[in-house]
Amino acid sequence: VSDTLAHTVVDGLRRLLPADLVRVGADIEPRYFGDWVVRSGQEDAPVALTLPRTTADVAAILRVCHAHGAPVVPQGGLTGLTGGGAPVAGAVLVSLERMRAVEELDPVASTITVQAGATLQAVQEAADAADLLYPLDIGGRGSCAIGGNISTNAGGNRVLRYGMTRDLVLGLEVVLADGTVVTSLNKMLKNNAAYDLKHLFIGAEGTLGIVTRAVLRLFPKPLGTDTALCAFRDFDAVYAFLRRARAKLAGSLSAFELMWPSFYAHAAAGRSAPPIPAGYAAYVLIEAMGTDPERDAAHFAGFIESAVEDELVADAVLAKSIAETRALWAIRDMSGELVRTLQPLANFDVSIETGQIDAFERACRARLRETWPSAETICFGHLADSNLHMFVTVDERPFPEHAIEDVVYASVRDWGGSISAEHGIGVIKKPYLAYSRTPEELALMKVVKAALDPRGILNPGKVFQ
Amino acid sequence: VSDTLAHTVVDGLRRLLPADLVRVGADIEPRYFGDWVVRSGQEDAPVALTLPRTTADVAAILRVCHAHGAPVVPQGGLTGLTGGGAPVAGAVLVSLERMRAVEELDPVASTITVQAGATLQAVQEAADAADLLYPLDIGGRGSCAIGGNISTNAGGNRVLRYGMTRDLVLGLEVVLADGTVVTSLNKMLKNNAAYDLKHLFIGAEGTLGIVTRAVLRLFPKPLGTDTALCAFRDFDAVYAFLRRARAKLAGSLSAFELMWPSFYAHAAAGRSAPPIPAGYAAYVLIEAMGTDPERDAAHFAGFIESAVEDELVADAVLAKSIAETRALWAIRDMSGELVRTLQPLANFDVSIETGQIDAFERACRARLRETWPSAETICFGHLADSNLHMFVTVDERPFPEHAIEDVVYASVRDWGGSISAEHGIGVIKKPYLAYSRTPEELALMKVVKAALDPRGILNPGKVFQ
Repeated sequence: VSDTLAHTVVDGLRRLLPADLVRVGADIEPRYFGDWVVRSGQEDAPVALTLPRTTADVAAILRVCHAHGAPVVPQGGLTGLTGGGAPVAGAVLVSLERMRAVEELDPVASTITVQAGATLQAVQEAADAADLLYPLDIGGRGSCAIGGNISTNAGGNRVLRYGMTRDLVLGLEVVLADGTVVTSLNKMLKNNAAYDLKHLFIGAEGTLGIVTRAVLRLFPKPLGTDTALCAFRDFDAVYAFLRRARAKLAGSLSAFELMWPSFYAHAAAGRSAPPIPAGYAAYVLIEAMGTDPERDAAHFAGFIESAVEDELVADAVLAKSIAETRALWAIRDMSGELVRTLQPLANFDVSIETGQIDAFERACRARLRETWPSAETICFGHLADSNLHMFVTVDERPFPEHAIEDVVYASVRDWGGSISAEHGIGVIKKPYLAYSRTPEELALMKVVKAALDPRGILNPGKVFQ
Repeated sequence: VSDTLAHTVVDGLRRLLPADLVRVGADIEPRYFGDWVVRSGQEDAPVALTLPRTTADVAAILRVCHAHGAPVVPQGGLTGLTGGGAPVAGAVLVSLERMRAVEELDPVASTITVQAGATLQAVQEAADAADLLYPLDIGGRGSCAIGGNISTNAGGNRVLRYGMTRDLVLGLEVVLADGTVVTSLNKMLKNNAAYDLKHLFIGAEGTLGIVTRAVLRLFPKPLGTDTALCAFRDFDAVYAFLRRARAKLAGSLSAFELMWPSFYAHAAAGRSAPPIPAGYAAYVLIEAMGTDPERDAAHFAGFIESAVEDELVADAVLAKSIAETRALWAIRDMSGELVRTLQPLANFDVSIETGQIDAFERACRARLRETWPSAETICFGHLADSNLHMFVTVDERPFPEHAIEDVVYASVRDWGGSISAEHGIGVIKKPYLAYSRTPEELALMKVVKAALDPRGILNPGKVFQ
């Protein structure tokens, strides 16, 4: 982008929006320069930050950028983990943070209609105030934006019961690259009137359009939660236990969080008396959310007891109070703490077919040790969702992060897995995308991209571009 | 399509496939000339019927058709209700009926991998044999093909609990218009490695590619079913009861079938003693599927009793045996019988926001009576899914089907509903598509179509073309 073009674009934007909503140079605060993982440097400086207040503002901004072929980077809460919202050189940043309205909550249709800049937490709270549940929940809840959740198809802890973000979206409003506004704020569960266009934009990381509004599904609030920590002698028992939990707890099963011994040992290390000793082959935090607390608690306890009696579960602790529930989750939630204390490490979010997840982990660890005999893998995962999170440490310095990525992603490729379970591709995983997608899939993605964004202005350099 | 071109295409096909698998003229049996509703006449005669045995066969057929610009009509079990699989003039029919293999059932991943020509019933039975459930269920189960279910995003009775076909598909293999095979037989619940391409083809009615294989989700088999028929004094009580059922039965609620008094009167007419007398404002068949029969039955009975005590439900009958369960469902399932006995009638499958469904029905009936004072509406619906099925009778002869469609679909448009909840668009609903989709949505559909099928050979004349 030449200086002249940049001036022309900025002039065009300034004619559309009040001065405070088009910022340039030092007026663009550092926080707009990246997400939780990726920071763009001055060589990737944007030409302007825009802060639209309405869908019409977004459309007008895109018309200007489209006319001049200026790159556009949509931004939500900037809590991404792959750099999808990081600036690229010469780009116009379009931050949705001024579009935070919760527009409507419909208790009969069980839907909430919001602007894309609303935070996840604001949506959760609005649902809660109406005695309903918006079930998506991820660590960035306080600052991540609904538009970002949609653009990355965010997952989290409750996918097992409620699905990914894609499953929670009923309708969308999107602004296309040329400024066309496509409004499909559908509130109906069934709508087979030709193509369901919203799926083009969910998980597209802002490369096909900018999401401006959404209709989301709400659910009844669970009235009670039962939680247990279980230990296993081998992984076959874990898989058998998962099958039994699916059958016996059915619609109420809400979490099945697998922890490898390495993770459990690190996570329980600081505790005077861990609820279950270290040394088992695997640990699972299992949770069910019901609607009849007394009845559900008895059923859940009976379910765990019979699994222990049948020697499927080697040891188990049932939470009997809110404090005990929190204490069990605290072990699983040590993942965030471990990312800091185990530095330097390489951090992975991959998917592997559920039945192969332990074999994959062993094979991947063996492969890492061929190069780094000191390699350690610290793993946990949403087993039922096929989602494995893995930290890798080695004692080589400087820390060979990319070399470790090469090994792990090559293993994922060889096992037919996905290099991204829930974080998306952004810029960080782009070099490895072909490990999980065939040339035909990638070619088809490019066909779709070229059709919807022929000038290639939307989030260039991201995902596969 | 000229005769010369037809000859060239048929010659090309004959070089690919054994003689018996490329049929022309009188060798194409009449059943390939339409679906359950639409019959194509001789003016729409196909040039050939092909019966591929493998994905490679399908790819080879499409390469020939693409090279010559010959239209292609994919066919499954031919049980559609909108003419999506009906021949068009000069087309090459591609029937998937020789591709019926159930290739793999993975009990740990809870998936089944099948060829697109497998019948729904074959998939249901394979799942059942492994003590699992493939939850999709529609009337055409014995002959409808999985590829057709996917291409129409089929719904049915259990959408409330398990979702539409879209929600049951994890992976797809598709042959594009030019013969490119895109294989994405993903078995993982979480996979955010760039665009989720399968959603392009689900519900596209064969206009963007031909589905050849699919990975489908399986679920634990419910161990018990509880069913009740409830009567209501007004629709506000129905909506309140639905909210309560969602909260109290949560993950086990599997059917909430609303019947209007007109439907109930017709459906119960032949019975000596209907379970609940006619004369109430609405009737609901409610069903829950659980995993602990004894416990669940007590909970369900208590739920219904408290709704009666609170005067939310005016009257209720709880099924106490399999025979009683069947008797209650027999009333709801009279819909198929009524389509025949009430002839001539116009038959609608539309979506209306759940909270407005009764008001819509009253307004639509009033509008019909402006033209036909004798108009009767006989309605039932999957209320929680926003899906209304409506039969309209009038005493004008010849029966003014299209004039009735004009009135009903105009009402749907005015209420912001969908002209197709679950049957798709095909050829029958094509004239009304713009009632439920904006010009921007239709333009975007055409952009996608042109990108994936630039020569326009796939199912021309269908959906919006």
